[in-house]
Amino acid sequence: MRLRNVKNKEEILQASSFLVKEPKKYCGKWSSYFHNTNPIYIEIGMGKGKFIREHAKRYPSINFIGIEKYDSVVAKCLPHIDSELKNLAIVRMDALEINQVFSHEVSRIYLNFSDPWPKNRHHLRRLSSKVFLEKYESVFCSDKEIWMRTDNADLFCYSLMSFSEAGYVLRNLTFDLHKNLPENFITTEYEDRFSERGMPIYSVEVVKVSKKVNK
Amino acid sequence: MRLRNVKNKEEILQASSFLVKEPKKYCGKWSSYFHNTNPIYIEIGMGKGKFIREHAKRYPSINFIGIEKYDSVVAKCLPHIDSELKNLAIVRMDALEINQVFSHEVSRIYLNFSDPWPKNRHHLRRLSSKVFLEKYESVFCSDKEIWMRTDNADLFCYSLMSFSEAGYVLRNLTFDLHKNLPENFITTEYEDRFSERGMPIYSVEVVKVSKKVNK
Repeated sequence: MRLRNVKNKEEILQASSFLVKEPKKYCGKWSSYFHNTNPIYIEIGMGKGKFIREHAKRYPSINFIGIEKYDSVVAKCLPHIDSELKNLAIVRMDALEINQVFSHEVSRIYLNFSDPWPKNRHHLRRLSSKVFLEKYESVFCSDKEIWMRTDNADLFCYSLMSFSEAGYVLRNLTFDLHKNLPENFITTEYEDRFSERGMPIYSVEVVKVSKKVNK
Repeated sequence: MRLRNVKNKEEILQASSFLVKEPKKYCGKWSSYFHNTNPIYIEIGMGKGKFIREHAKRYPSINFIGIEKYDSVVAKCLPHIDSELKNLAIVRMDALEINQVFSHEVSRIYLNFSDPWPKNRHHLRRLSSKVFLEKYESVFCSDKEIWMRTDNADLFCYSLMSFSEAGYVLRNLTFDLHKNLPENFITTEYEDRFSERGMPIYSVEVVKVSKKVNK
């Protein structure tokens, strides 16, 4: 995403009740943040946040957490959040620290239009690399789902191989997500621009079934 | 594949030393057919056989078996086989009988441009459906590899999901096989026609690592 500075970003960040200022404090206890034990879904790299905001609105019995690295981007998201929402939190952090912020409590991770890091020597920076998949292991509770969308074929191929290597099973795989979209389908800002130009969106849901030790 | 009748097909079939007339006789003992214990790779749906013929020529230390259902298609393949080859056999059979012809002896299956059976109600007829993957279990020895190529995105998506569901790991996945082809790459007749028209070829190698019971 191209970064444009937001002048009063610090002010916006400080004023928002949705931005969690000390997210590591909630590691392993995000249920206490939301005051309920509903499932927790996170989006890593939420960008301007349309996807996660609209999901939170539509699915009140799920707790959503949007994660974004850049202040300016977070500052663009916050003013658009419906102030009534009780099931949405925003965390400003580097994804590399994901397992210092969540511990065995997330049931789904969304990776939407993640940075493809096209150079081979950077492949471990991709959010679907084994480096991140290993971190996600301690982020997830017993349900482990990653839902990915991208317009980048190379990133998508890499990710499918990486997921399968890590023992995930592929579901609802498509190379053209927008071909038969259901009504009211929630997209990202980036996705809207791409699909308007007729470019195909790749999508997959991957699931890992935990081996139950105790029955 | 469009079927054109071959007038003297019975004659061609009878005369060929490459066509195995009673393949079920060799079930579990194909090594004795080839008089060696080299690895066995099979192609299910070989069509006119360019792929398997050229592979047999290039890799003399692998035993190749081409499988095809239709007499007329087999009859088109046989005259093109280099008569010197010692590592190629052709079997005319329905793939549904695959586990009556092979038993724990094949290490790789090629599925090249298989019939996509596009209607949902026919999905179990696809050579990558769970019906066939279950049959392949007893066909394979401890190495289990399926190498697939197709121009059909829907069949490819279906197959990737089916492979991952059955515990296969995806390797060398590409949505455009012909983008960076090595020199002397062996193609099928069908593939040549498609790639000449600039249509992308999807390709994947899937591998299942056997759980060793005895060390």
